[in-house]
Amino acid sequence: MRYYEDIEVDSIQDLGSYTVPKSEMIEFAERYDPQPIHVDEDVARETIHEGLIASGWYTASVCMRLLVDGFLAGTASVGAFGLDELRWRTPVRAEDRIRAEHRILEATKSTTRDDRGYVTGELTAHNQNDEEVIEWRATSIFLRRP
Amino acid sequence: MRYYEDIEVDSIQDLGSYTVPKSEMIEFAERYDPQPIHVDEDVARETIHEGLIASGWYTASVCMRLLVDGFLAGTASVGAFGLDELRWRTPVRAEDRIRAEHRILEATKSTTRDDRGYVTGELTAHNQNDEEVIEWRATSIFLRRP
Repeated sequence: MRYYEDIEVDSIQDLGSYTVPKSEMIEFAERYDPQPIHVDEDVARETIHEGLIASGWYTASVCMRLLVDGFLAGTASVGAFGLDELRWRTPVRAEDRIRAEHRILEATKSTTRDDRGYVTGELTAHNQNDEEVIEWRATSIFLRRP
Repeated sequence: MRYYEDIEVDSIQDLGSYTVPKSEMIEFAERYDPQPIHVDEDVARETIHEGLIASGWYTASVCMRLLVDGFLAGTASVGAFGLDELRWRTPVRAEDRIRAEHRILEATKSTTRDDRGYVTGELTAHNQNDEEVIEWRATSIFLRRP
């Protein structure tokens, strides 16, 4: 288990990749973001996107899964406060291969609770053409080594 | 259909509410955010959260669905650039009733493309105890009236 003390500022985590199944991408959008550009192929073709694109929340969720499997699962992280500067750069499309990376930007001990610290990380993801698809910064609570 | 010209700065949209089914909340986390606090009731009980809490991405996705149904579906929005200042204020738990509201903060015509404008909106959501659970600001592209 890696605690707050084990998180190294400026370290980079390769989170691996995930190929987006068309069915999963559409299913997510039908449930949480049923805009025509995400669920209706015929309508999407006539828009500025010229075809179906993933919901940005789907893209984020896929990257979150990579972040959990590739970093958070082995740590004493107990949740995040929020996100800043989330940007959807290039739309994700069915069968895109998304590769994500995470970098630790900052770590600060809590001044009021001696059992925890705050870790800010930046996630970035690219598609198979090396175009950036998403990035965000998040600050999470990490427990300190008991 | 409401175009860029029809979006009124400072207007507020009541997006209605959604009661979070425990099964859906856990299913989402198992797929996209399988941290113990989101998927393992026994482990979650022993953490600082004292029980299962929703993935923040699930909370955001539920609010996105309310935003689509309560506002975006009737507009010429064609996607968002990104989010700023997303904050998870109070964790969402199974069977919570989430009520969301949206406010238009800013609208700016594109200076380079005369078919579109940019609209910044703020979403906030509260639970049944009137505790804020999430908020964010997003900037979307809206087509101008043809």
